[in-house]
Amino acid sequence: MADKIIFNRVAIAGVGLIGGSLALAGKRAGVFGKVIGLGRGKENLATALRLGVVDEVTSDMAEAARGADLFFVATPVESIAPMILKAAPFLPRGCVITDGGSVKQSIVRRVEAELPEGLFFAAGHPVAGTEKTGAQAAFADLYKDRFTILTPTPKTSAQALEKVRAMWAATGSKVVIMTPEEHDEAMAVISHLPHLVAFALMDAVAACDPDGKRRAFSAGGLRDTTRIAGSDPVMWRDIFSMNQSLLLQSLTRFQDSLDGLRMSVESGDFGALQASLERISRARRELD
Amino acid sequence: MADKIIFNRVAIAGVGLIGGSLALAGKRAGVFGKVIGLGRGKENLATALRLGVVDEVTSDMAEAARGADLFFVATPVESIAPMILKAAPFLPRGCVITDGGSVKQSIVRRVEAELPEGLFFAAGHPVAGTEKTGAQAAFADLYKDRFTILTPTPKTSAQALEKVRAMWAATGSKVVIMTPEEHDEAMAVISHLPHLVAFALMDAVAACDPDGKRRAFSAGGLRDTTRIAGSDPVMWRDIFSMNQSLLLQSLTRFQDSLDGLRMSVESGDFGALQASLERISRARRELD
Repeated sequence: MADKIIFNRVAIAGVGLIGGSLALAGKRAGVFGKVIGLGRGKENLATALRLGVVDEVTSDMAEAARGADLFFVATPVESIAPMILKAAPFLPRGCVITDGGSVKQSIVRRVEAELPEGLFFAAGHPVAGTEKTGAQAAFADLYKDRFTILTPTPKTSAQALEKVRAMWAATGSKVVIMTPEEHDEAMAVISHLPHLVAFALMDAVAACDPDGKRRAFSAGGLRDTTRIAGSDPVMWRDIFSMNQSLLLQSLTRFQDSLDGLRMSVESGDFGALQASLERISRARRELD
Repeated sequence: MADKIIFNRVAIAGVGLIGGSLALAGKRAGVFGKVIGLGRGKENLATALRLGVVDEVTSDMAEAARGADLFFVATPVESIAPMILKAAPFLPRGCVITDGGSVKQSIVRRVEAELPEGLFFAAGHPVAGTEKTGAQAAFADLYKDRFTILTPTPKTSAQALEKVRAMWAATGSKVVIMTPEEHDEAMAVISHLPHLVAFALMDAVAACDPDGKRRAFSAGGLRDTTRIAGSDPVMWRDIFSMNQSLLLQSLTRFQDSLDGLRMSVESGDFGALQASLERISRARRELD
């Protein structure tokens, strides 16, 4: 298996679902040598070690960084750039750095502006996840058949990008390349907007049904539509904050759509309403 | 089993998922004698007969109504009241009439105003369904452990209501009684609003992603949130139309929620945003 190895010593900051699953998938594929888990939560690190998610654990940045040829940051999205810049003085020259953040422009901009020479950042976003968190949620198949988006810029080292691409491909993921802008525009529409809308819908339902009696009669529709409103509030605060302007653009588009449907209902123009619903329903059925 | 029978001769207008499943469930429970399927689509009626969903089929209203002691209307919601009033002259005195419409006030109002003496209407709404339609989609367990809401008024015969209640209970459904107004208010919030929001979201996503390339990267969130936007456009045009004012009320509440979240994102008040998301996320988790 030794000839498959892409990274000999992998430091993973944040050994939760994303970081832990990459550790497991990379080890299983034989592309990682030793994997060191870096984190602050002693209990989570102990779990990661006990379950064999990583080979070693530490809360000490210098210790994790020492000798690493890959530094993967899977911490909350707001702390990714600060974490990379904090680790940089400890990382050996030639080290490849990548991340799992679901917003890319702001991270790439800051890291490229401040990263010292001799370290190579190739940003990424594995589009995968479950509601579960922590090392005990990690599993080697998380990335199988899912997309991973890499977002190089003209400053990105082609060699670093290729290594990161090969690593994600080894997990079974489908790797796609786009610019950080394209990534954030796409995510604003297909992920961040649906989350904001689901949060608003759940808020309205709770407000219209303070004692929960009406919700007792809900069928699958309400549950499906609001499922992602149960997501982690701090994580989504950060994502909304970091992709603010593109999110607001897609939100404006949503409000236009809603206003259009509202106007048809309000004015009793049910012919126009039917035409809209037919177009939309067709688009949704094409998504399956 | 003869002593279990509630209705000896059941005419069902609309032998699709809702009507066909009641036929199957009622026969299995032994509460129906003969079941006659009434409809316009010859092919669907032939399927219903072939699959044993009903005992007889006809496209002739007079023939279906003759001797019926239950007339169940499971046609599209806009045609329920007209269908009942059209059948009335053919139904024998004492016949119990009920329906499966997902909007109740407008149906109850019209039928109560125009139904001849000697016929007994007890309106209902089995809160169940799948994406599938037609007689071939019917199955006897559709109503098991699901709610059926009955919406009597002061004019409703207690005896007719009790028979309809017992019939639904025999299908395994949990029967709940409320006023037509309470029903429509609840459905506006927990069903009609989520549908309208899902339609608007799918519309915005399609508009922001005309070639579908971005949607290719969507994870489960977008799919869950927009699933019900694939629903039947004509059915939802009718529901939105028939519950117009209560839908608009709940839509206004949704727009307030959305505006509140938007304002927090736009102004960069991420403390307020986090507080909102925490409250909403908690409410959603309580829904599970």
